Amino acid sequence: MRKVELYDTTLRDGAQSEGISYSVQDKLKIAHKLDDLGIHYIEGGWPGSNPKDMEFFRLIRRKRLKQAKICAFGSTTRARLSPAKDKNIQSLLKANTEVVTIFGKSWDLHVKYVLKTSLDENLNMIFSSINYLKKRKRKVIYDAEHFFNGALDNFDYAMNTLIAAAEAGADILVLCDTNGGMITSSVVDIIRDVRTRLSVPLGIHAHNDSGMAVANSIAAVEEGCSHLQGTMNGYGERCGNADLTVSIANLKLKLGMECISKANLEKLTETSHYVAELSNMRHNNNHPYVGESAFAHKAGVHINAMVKHPLTYEHVRPELVGNARRFLLSELSGRTLIMLKAKQLKLGFKKDAVHTKKILKLLQDMEHQGYQFEAAEGSFDLMIKKAFKKYERFFDLQGFRVIIEKNEQGEVVSEAAIKLKVDNIDKYTVAEGDGPVNALDSAIRKALLEFYPALAKMHLTDFKVRVLDEKAGTAAKVRVLIQSQDAKDSWGTVGVSENIIEASWQALIDSIEYKLIKDKR
Amino acid sequence: MRKVELYDTTLRDGAQSEGISYSVQDKLKIAHKLDDLGIHYIEGGWPGSNPKDMEFFRLIRRKRLKQAKICAFGSTTRARLSPAKDKNIQSLLKANTEVVTIFGKSWDLHVKYVLKTSLDENLNMIFSSINYLKKRKRKVIYDAEHFFNGALDNFDYAMNTLIAAAEAGADILVLCDTNGGMITSSVVDIIRDVRTRLSVPLGIHAHNDSGMAVANSIAAVEEGCSHLQGTMNGYGERCGNADLTVSIANLKLKLGMECISKANLEKLTETSHYVAELSNMRHNNNHPYVGESAFAHKAGVHINAMVKHPLTYEHVRPELVGNARRFLLSELSGRTLIMLKAKQLKLGFKKDAVHTKKILKLLQDMEHQGYQFEAAEGSFDLMIKKAFKKYERFFDLQGFRVIIEKNEQGEVVSEAAIKLKVDNIDKYTVAEGDGPVNALDSAIRKALLEFYPALAKMHLTDFKVRVLDEKAGTAAKVRVLIQSQDAKDSWGTVGVSENIIEASWQALIDSIEYKLIKDKR
Repeated sequence: MRKVELYDTTLRDGAQSEGISYSVQDKLKIAHKLDDLGIHYIEGGWPGSNPKDMEFFRLIRRKRLKQAKICAFGSTTRARLSPAKDKNIQSLLKANTEVVTIFGKSWDLHVKYVLKTSLDENLNMIFSSINYLKKRKRKVIYDAEHFFNGALDNFDYAMNTLIAAAEAGADILVLCDTNGGMITSSVVDIIRDVRTRLSVPLGIHAHNDSGMAVANSIAAVEEGCSHLQGTMNGYGERCGNADLTVSIANLKLKLGMECISKANLEKLTETSHYVAELSNMRHNNNHPYVGESAFAHKAGVHINAMVKHPLTYEHVRPELVGNARRFLLSELSGRTLIMLKAKQLKLGFKKDAVHTKKILKLLQDMEHQGYQFEAAEGSFDLMIKKAFKKYERFFDLQGFRVIIEKNEQGEVVSEAAIKLKVDNIDKYTVAEGDGPVNALDSAIRKALLEFYPALAKMHLTDFKVRVLDEKAGTAAKVRVLIQSQDAKDSWGTVGVSENIIEASWQALIDSIEYKLIKDKR
Repeated sequence: MRKVELYDTTLRDGAQSEGISYSVQDKLKIAHKLDDLGIHYIEGGWPGSNPKDMEFFRLIRRKRLKQAKICAFGSTTRARLSPAKDKNIQSLLKANTEVVTIFGKSWDLHVKYVLKTSLDENLNMIFSSINYLKKRKRKVIYDAEHFFNGALDNFDYAMNTLIAAAEAGADILVLCDTNGGMITSSVVDIIRDVRTRLSVPLGIHAHNDSGMAVANSIAAVEEGCSHLQGTMNGYGERCGNADLTVSIANLKLKLGMECISKANLEKLTETSHYVAELSNMRHNNNHPYVGESAFAHKAGVHINAMVKHPLTYEHVRPELVGNARRFLLSELSGRTLIMLKAKQLKLGFKKDAVHTKKILKLLQDMEHQGYQFEAAEGSFDLMIKKAFKKYERFFDLQGFRVIIEKNEQGEVVSEAAIKLKVDNIDKYTVAEGDGPVNALDSAIRKALLEFYPALAKMHLTDFKVRVLDEKAGTAAKVRVLIQSQDAKDSWGTVGVSENIIEASWQALIDSIEYKLIKDKR
């Protein structure tokens, strides 16, 4: 079985994503998670460009990693400057890592317009930088920036830059599609040409500007590259880097390559979501392998077939990558699923058209208003119970009032007052909170706790707000999704309104009612 | 120049996306937009499975399209049933389209487990369905479902299904990677094999479960397919379909194929965003070619090089696809950009380290608190002005109070009261609104309008809410982004707080102050 080394640059190239900014603590956490997943190299940052990165290298040295090697990243020395006098090269040494990654120019256009030096001097810079680091006992990975563009424009010169790096002792030569515009067939052709002329191990570093970074990386491995660079979830400048989560799954499950263990592959989905969270990025539902919808079936015919044989509409078993199969509730999902749901709810339905139609109609009406039940099965259950009069009230709301006040000193206070009846007993409570929704949450709990002490064991784990018709400005409708859990279960609820407080209230109340019904069963 | 036909299935396969649900009006609007872009075939829906789809076909018939042909989609007839008696086939005829797309099974596993019929009967179903439609003068596109899986498991049988379709008169045979799990090299190998045995025009329909749908589609075209299916923005079940926006740009700009005109290509970005909006889906920033960040540069070295030569970090010119280059404000963007910004603001900076450092420090601190200025240059300008004492107040806020009340009948009312001073004149206003933020917006306008009548010409065009630390539940920090415009300009502002009302207030006030400062210049 061929082996492929994985090289993660989330902490450096990934941090170039619009919207991403890591603290040193974030970086340390992500590095540990990548090590857990079985990544071989973790690029920690560019110590020469960023003082925060140097701090990372200082702190990570004290940590024990399972197998990952930390790499410091930097450029070749400046034109006509000895590496010994180059600040950037010196900060690479200061980072004190076993492995150093150096990038140099392969494309004559860059040498001319950006470096503004001669083609020969560029070869010299590549050679002297790598040679200097090799003499100081570093393992050197050479990133040949813009290699594919360079090869298309001036193949001989691009090859000469690789040869200079190889002669200086670089351990791996990484071919970079820095602008991300290559198509797969060009990548294949160019790597074949390079392989006839060089025997140093090759790597691939692809960007995604033509939407092919993963395909180009996988093709490169098929053509003999034994080192693959990328970022978690494909983070990176512009359209991002090759997505390491997807590449790893493809290497293991499609090419049968040795890279991470089968047991670690099962951590893939969790790792991907963990990094998204620390990166403060929304995780894409349709993300291959690791997305919330990656194995979610919605079309009626698909659900029908999946019940007969899971291979019919799944390319791999979701458990292999730690993901799970889901069937989605929507007007398209058809009778099979609606009946399945009704059965779960024990509503004692007959499998007749009248009931199914009524539920489908309800779903359509609610979806039309902006509700979505795919992540809010709690609200879906309550809606059906209400529609079929299987619903009992736990309390009657008389009203609430939320006040948010800001004073001259800029201090803001939120207060919520709630009036309700439980078993004909009046309750009138008031609470403050971190914002109006938090105040409401506290006030309703205060009111209900003596009647339903189990509510103390339930808490909110997730709160999401989506503006539905963004163009309506501040009068836009919003959808609020709340995820709650107790010791045993987790459930989602939803609310929709032009008023964000009312939308949050709906989701909040559904969440509490769902808990109370669940406990009674 | 080779020609490639484009076939869009956003309205059918795209609608299978988790979170997408189109009304008939949405579908009509999208169809027109696709026609404007120059798409050749638009799959309107599956009339046999969904009454809403039949309504679409009825309404679109009355509309004039420039060149797009509308297609109705459906399956082959049921086993041992004459097409004349098959409801699904009959509804395809009722849709009354010039072109019909029929899908049939190519994979013996599906014939066995899902259709539960014999391999021969499946061939018969394919032949008789297509033959029946051809006799009724339809152009027939045959979608060979799961073709690649079928070819890998039982190549001869998969070929026989294609031959049955060809003999029945199908005009185009579309090879589908329905489960989306193929890698590019397999797609290439299989198409080469098929091409040696068949001369009917071939098409490609790829899904994205291994993250390679676009690469597989482009490779298929390079191997001779002349018909490419996909969806706008890659919408579709699970991980989505081949992304037509990215595929089109690659066909035109990378392969030099004839598909849509150069002028229409410039509508690509706008079309992609339009469809995202009607689909109620967030447009991904890092979307190749059409994303907000697709040509956005953040790394200091990149910005530096881009100023020297745009080809250095861009694979194509953004204007070709109707997109634009952007330089991002962040702690990574370095001195070049900060100085550029400061110059725009006419703050009269010297290009010295003290000023640049102070701004960088400010940016870092604010980003740390959760602010982001990449989409909020209005707030960035104000922040710098405040930091350098170049800021003048237009009013002094004494305080505000927002009340949201819900009564027993379930009615919700939002009211905002604001106390402020302009030129030592006290103003105390109150207003109701559709939700608390809208009420605040109305109250502040009421207070300021007599002093600054130009505010009447400004309005909010976009309002976004992002929960930053979703796990903190209802006490989570939120970031509010507001986009505003007047007759001349558009600007973004940002607010961050645990209190959504306070965060909205910050963004609202910045938006108003930015407008007033702008008008004074």
